[in-house]
Amino acid sequence: MLPPNDPNRHNFSGGPGALPRSVLEQLQEAIGAVPEVGLSILGVSHRSDWFAAVVSELEANIRQLLGLPENYHVLFLQGGATQQFSMAPMTWLRGKKEAADYLQTGYWSSKAITEAAREGPLRVLWHGEAGGFRRLPQDEELEFNPAAPYLHYVSNETVEGLQFHRIIGRDDIPRICDMSSDFLSATGPFDKFSLIYAHAQKNLGPAGVTVVIIKDQLLQDAPRDRLPAFLDYHQQIAAHSILNTPPVFAIYTVLLVTRWLRDEIGGLAAMAEINAAKAAALYRLLDDHDDFYIPRAAKADRSTMNVVFNLQSRQREQAFLAAAEAAGFSGLGGHRSIGGIRASLYNGLERAAVDNLIDFMADFRRRSLA
Amino acid sequence: MLPPNDPNRHNFSGGPGALPRSVLEQLQEAIGAVPEVGLSILGVSHRSDWFAAVVSELEANIRQLLGLPENYHVLFLQGGATQQFSMAPMTWLRGKKEAADYLQTGYWSSKAITEAAREGPLRVLWHGEAGGFRRLPQDEELEFNPAAPYLHYVSNETVEGLQFHRIIGRDDIPRICDMSSDFLSATGPFDKFSLIYAHAQKNLGPAGVTVVIIKDQLLQDAPRDRLPAFLDYHQQIAAHSILNTPPVFAIYTVLLVTRWLRDEIGGLAAMAEINAAKAAALYRLLDDHDDFYIPRAAKADRSTMNVVFNLQSRQREQAFLAAAEAAGFSGLGGHRSIGGIRASLYNGLERAAVDNLIDFMADFRRRSLA
Repeated sequence: MLPPNDPNRHNFSGGPGALPRSVLEQLQEAIGAVPEVGLSILGVSHRSDWFAAVVSELEANIRQLLGLPENYHVLFLQGGATQQFSMAPMTWLRGKKEAADYLQTGYWSSKAITEAAREGPLRVLWHGEAGGFRRLPQDEELEFNPAAPYLHYVSNETVEGLQFHRIIGRDDIPRICDMSSDFLSATGPFDKFSLIYAHAQKNLGPAGVTVVIIKDQLLQDAPRDRLPAFLDYHQQIAAHSILNTPPVFAIYTVLLVTRWLRDEIGGLAAMAEINAAKAAALYRLLDDHDDFYIPRAAKADRSTMNVVFNLQSRQREQAFLAAAEAAGFSGLGGHRSIGGIRASLYNGLERAAVDNLIDFMADFRRRSLA
Repeated sequence: MLPPNDPNRHNFSGGPGALPRSVLEQLQEAIGAVPEVGLSILGVSHRSDWFAAVVSELEANIRQLLGLPENYHVLFLQGGATQQFSMAPMTWLRGKKEAADYLQTGYWSSKAITEAAREGPLRVLWHGEAGGFRRLPQDEELEFNPAAPYLHYVSNETVEGLQFHRIIGRDDIPRICDMSSDFLSATGPFDKFSLIYAHAQKNLGPAGVTVVIIKDQLLQDAPRDRLPAFLDYHQQIAAHSILNTPPVFAIYTVLLVTRWLRDEIGGLAAMAEINAAKAAALYRLLDDHDDFYIPRAAKADRSTMNVVFNLQSRQREQAFLAAAEAAGFSGLGGHRSIGGIRASLYNGLERAAVDNLIDFMADFRRRSLA
């Protein structure tokens, strides 16, 4: 039912990312009628037994993929990571005397800090350096507060292309992590975290749903009946994400993506291997031609999801983007806050697309230097 | 591409409601690739020119359909009507001395009152009556506070099947109205309202997006920089609903529904006529056989969207629901809070489906009394 795959049309956008072809095919069918129900996915009741089973299987799939035990709750909420920027500190920071630890490592963690600062005291452990966010802090540069209500950081900064390749913080302080842009892209150990949140539109599904994973111990520390119902983790968990009408279509899509990950890809270890190979191939091209393509992030902190680089001049970057768009590579423009080039390599983007891009980039360099 | 229309399979659910067939067909195509873009609707950038044009056309379509002047802002937010239950009083009630006026006319307005009461002082003008919500107040039963920050009411109570067929309140006090279940189902005058909100999943599109319409004058009274960005109407309006990643698919669907309303149906007056005829036909059956089917709502306040009724016993209701389900009428069970039967007749439900239901109901009665 899908149009034939166009090998020269690829979505390298920072998000929403591409979804696997087999998932798109199932969604087309479900818009006509969900096979098990006989009604369009857009007209299925969210109070039906079928949808309760969708949520329940999806919770289980995510726990299984991440290797999480039963003392983790899995939620599907609206409002994006942006809502979690506020909802977490509304819950665990309001009224506290002791400051939470926050890491400022790029564009998105800065947004999280702005919103958290409205809710309670926080201490920013790391501000980046002059010249922008080009590397992440090393362990010896971070002094964690042993009395902090929690530590918050962003595992992958999509704008700057920086990714933590280790877990930071102390085991006795709850870790809260925004994994929006690398969730389900690699293996854990995820049980080192007390709260993980990730909007769907990179690796998981369409914009409009956000996965939130909460360790029971942290949940127990959340006050009750102090927040509106939709901002109250307790109430959302009690309702299994169906407190009010949830985004049924987006949640169903995420279910299909988790099935694809498990059954077609073979789990997170296999996915991680594919993603590492995609990123390594593209970084190799940059390193081989760093007279022309200038990688932005320090080598140790390079993101496997977002490969960010510059060319020698803004003019040459614009020529690159125009030629890439014409060649069918969509969404390569860097984030509006810093410009440059960004190739996002989310789970749904196939290796062949990266190879095509590499060929194009090698060719563009040759033509430019000729 | 859609499976052939099954004339014996209809969605009468209280929501999500059915969407028009031509909209579903366009969505199937867009899941493969949006014609103007060449990428799947699930992988189109929300920062693209194309999506900015989608939002801009949708804002204009809604203003045009409702006959609203340029001093109304149109937003597409997440979180459902539930988020608006809190967001409106967070904005216009917090810190106020004077109480806002609220009408409690059924299940949903009761929810709105619970959430508003967390935020500031309110006065409930009408509580319904002993025996549940079976009618709406008359004008002489309502004494509005001339100093209230605003009046809040729900135009259509889906659970009880009660609908206001007039506009209530004072012109000098801002009217805030939850129109989730009858939005775009009939004509206005909508410029009597200062804030209108409506989640999409009845008449407009899939769950996951909520339309919010704000008169500029009310917006000017909203404090700035006191709420998290995602709960701040000013910031959402400044960003034209793209403050963070919006639910792209849901918004695109609502655009297609507004085009269908305008071009295929012929606008709200034509839609109102179709809806009135559907409801009249079904209520006529109830009235003709009120020895068997017992309408719940007072005649003057009957909803054109949700026809709620009982049978003589719970046992007979269960037999009715089982027979209806077997005959392909889905979602006829009343809301879990009151039980009974509810037939929801949203915009997307075709007249033929109502006629089929009427035939079935006449036949069920004959068989039961035989």
